Amino acid sequence: MDYRVVEELAFQNDKKIVLLVMDGVGGLQMPGREGTELHVARIPNLNLLARQGSCGLMDPIMPGVTPGSGPAHFALFGYDPVENNIGRGVLEAAGIGMELTPDDVAVRINFATIDEKGNIVDRRAGRIPTEECERLCKKLQEKVDLGPDVQFIIKPVKEHRAMIVLRGKGLSGDLLDTDPQQTGVPALPATPAVDTEEARRTAKIVDELVRQVKEILADEPKANFILLRGFAKNRHYRSMEERFKLRAYAIANYPMYRGVAKLVGMKLHPITPDVKTEFEALREVWNDHDFFFLHVKYTDSRGEDGDFDAKVKIIEEVDSYIPMITELNPDVLVVTGDHSTPAVLKSHSWHPVPVILAAPTARMDDVERFDEVSCAKGTLGRFPTVELMSLMLAHALRLKKFGA
Amino acid sequence: MDYRVVEELAFQNDKKIVLLVMDGVGGLQMPGREGTELHVARIPNLNLLARQGSCGLMDPIMPGVTPGSGPAHFALFGYDPVENNIGRGVLEAAGIGMELTPDDVAVRINFATIDEKGNIVDRRAGRIPTEECERLCKKLQEKVDLGPDVQFIIKPVKEHRAMIVLRGKGLSGDLLDTDPQQTGVPALPATPAVDTEEARRTAKIVDELVRQVKEILADEPKANFILLRGFAKNRHYRSMEERFKLRAYAIANYPMYRGVAKLVGMKLHPITPDVKTEFEALREVWNDHDFFFLHVKYTDSRGEDGDFDAKVKIIEEVDSYIPMITELNPDVLVVTGDHSTPAVLKSHSWHPVPVILAAPTARMDDVERFDEVSCAKGTLGRFPTVELMSLMLAHALRLKKFGA
Repeated sequence: MDYRVVEELAFQNDKKIVLLVMDGVGGLQMPGREGTELHVARIPNLNLLARQGSCGLMDPIMPGVTPGSGPAHFALFGYDPVENNIGRGVLEAAGIGMELTPDDVAVRINFATIDEKGNIVDRRAGRIPTEECERLCKKLQEKVDLGPDVQFIIKPVKEHRAMIVLRGKGLSGDLLDTDPQQTGVPALPATPAVDTEEARRTAKIVDELVRQVKEILADEPKANFILLRGFAKNRHYRSMEERFKLRAYAIANYPMYRGVAKLVGMKLHPITPDVKTEFEALREVWNDHDFFFLHVKYTDSRGEDGDFDAKVKIIEEVDSYIPMITELNPDVLVVTGDHSTPAVLKSHSWHPVPVILAAPTARMDDVERFDEVSCAKGTLGRFPTVELMSLMLAHALRLKKFGA
Repeated sequence: MDYRVVEELAFQNDKKIVLLVMDGVGGLQMPGREGTELHVARIPNLNLLARQGSCGLMDPIMPGVTPGSGPAHFALFGYDPVENNIGRGVLEAAGIGMELTPDDVAVRINFATIDEKGNIVDRRAGRIPTEECERLCKKLQEKVDLGPDVQFIIKPVKEHRAMIVLRGKGLSGDLLDTDPQQTGVPALPATPAVDTEEARRTAKIVDELVRQVKEILADEPKANFILLRGFAKNRHYRSMEERFKLRAYAIANYPMYRGVAKLVGMKLHPITPDVKTEFEALREVWNDHDFFFLHVKYTDSRGEDGDFDAKVKIIEEVDSYIPMITELNPDVLVVTGDHSTPAVLKSHSWHPVPVILAAPTARMDDVERFDEVSCAKGTLGRFPTVELMSLMLAHALRLKKFGA
């Protein structure tokens, strides 16, 4: 998909687009059940949308490729998921509201416990409370000193988890995790994943950081060490407003999804207590934006748990909230997932994801249900998720004609 | 689509391919009617072809992108519609039979009326008769002098419309229209659309041209000025014969489509009085060519008018002429459109276009009707229009095997 063409054609109008993403909604038939999670679910509102709109199946990245949540969401937002792939460190740092510059390397950390020989005793430092994590981060923020060229920034997340950002010219995100993913062994030294001057230099800085942290935390009873994983260098992303003339708004409660949304220039809604309040939020912010990304996490979580019935239940709960969107009369309403998470596989999978595109300008097909088998016969056919953005823009009449 | 592969495999044989294009045939459901224009139309002959052939849906350019007629036809002829996009000036100049060189800049003109202050009074000079237009063109052809480096060529089209070609080294087509699209104001000066030496120089030449025209036409009662729009620089196109080993023939009555056909090296049939005579022409020229492009304009025109029933009627008329093609026993018969023009939208749209590929070598599917919903379930699936050419060649057994 050559999005340069689409970007040249995109213009601002007053139409509104809602993209409802049920994370991991695609499923697989479970032995003894009548098909997939979507088949079994009673979803009258989604089925009505399927009857009214155009349906299809989307491959998140390409046929056969199982995506992580990051690239799957880049694709949903019209960003090439391979070209724009970025490590978890940056996604989560952006997701917890750290303001990143293109010079930043971000990494997730765990506070951990090591013994006097330096071997890891507990990779999570006994899951220290969040307030303890906050105290430790403050202590490190005050005392760590990486010299005049590299700024150190640390921010607590939850329990033993925190984020570190290293800011400075010429740093690299191409480092392997220092977390060995087991106890009874020492942490790994920082190791370049590629052989570049930048990666070697950054590895030295990380080793020095770990040395200082060990010293500073030496008197802590539990959290006397850190393990680093998911190193990633930030980069510049052109915003959805710049590319597609969309003032985009994200209603999502998990750092990862908030992170991708933030990187592509969406405004983030404050975290809400549950799924229903996410849907309620839509009405409050309706007037000031053109594009609304609404993310439901638990379809994926229950799929990962292998809990078919619980996933069905979440889908039915989401179905019951659909009228809260339709009564706002969006010009385009898309319902889909970022990828499949079949309960029977207990993990993300490569199976294409059903999609409904409902709009007055959508061509009707004879799909009568929102499920994987019915949507395969829809008029949208099967297509890569990254193509969804141009379809949403087109149905919102936000693209000019190409050529004479 | 990497057509270098296809070009290397293409060879000449005695098989004949017919490509019937109903301009803008794709539609959209009309409230209160039983579906789209194609759904409502009684088209027994097209439905028979759909039953016999392979069916699918084509995206003219890429999903969501609404094409102009130019790029949509380049795609139908196997030319990348983005890479080969060219301005209207060249398409129409080629379409009215002007022989263009790669050095030419072509532009459409209107004869117009201005008052003594230079303000536009009538953008169409009272729609002067075509004979008057011919007289004025002859007068300008004799008197305009742009110096030794730039040749001036003018040719009447119809009523107040004519085409101008500027021929000379280093000219640019990147100029904005001088037609302000309103009266009571003066024409715009020639203005470069990009900041290049060539565009600035060409703008000066155009300004000088307009100055001379104003002088030469000063004593004309109505047509005392010209307005220019659709500047375009010509370029070289490799012919369909060179690329695909096809001796191609175009039966099309409108300049735009004749223009694209001409640019890709098709021979042009003389303009015929109506749709039926286009179909009759096929038999006359059947023996001397391999590929026949047959273009029906009015499906698009009635769609643009928003006249659902009139579009249905044209589709039914075309259906009645299908036996005039099938009795010639073409080896491959494709019926499709260049894009959709749903009556309900009164304009071109991005919706994919149904296609039938009928041939003894075509794999049957269970599509029983030629319409957007039925063809979505066909064996060809959904694909970009530019891929149609290799399918036509393959079904005509005109492509060798690739690799050992």
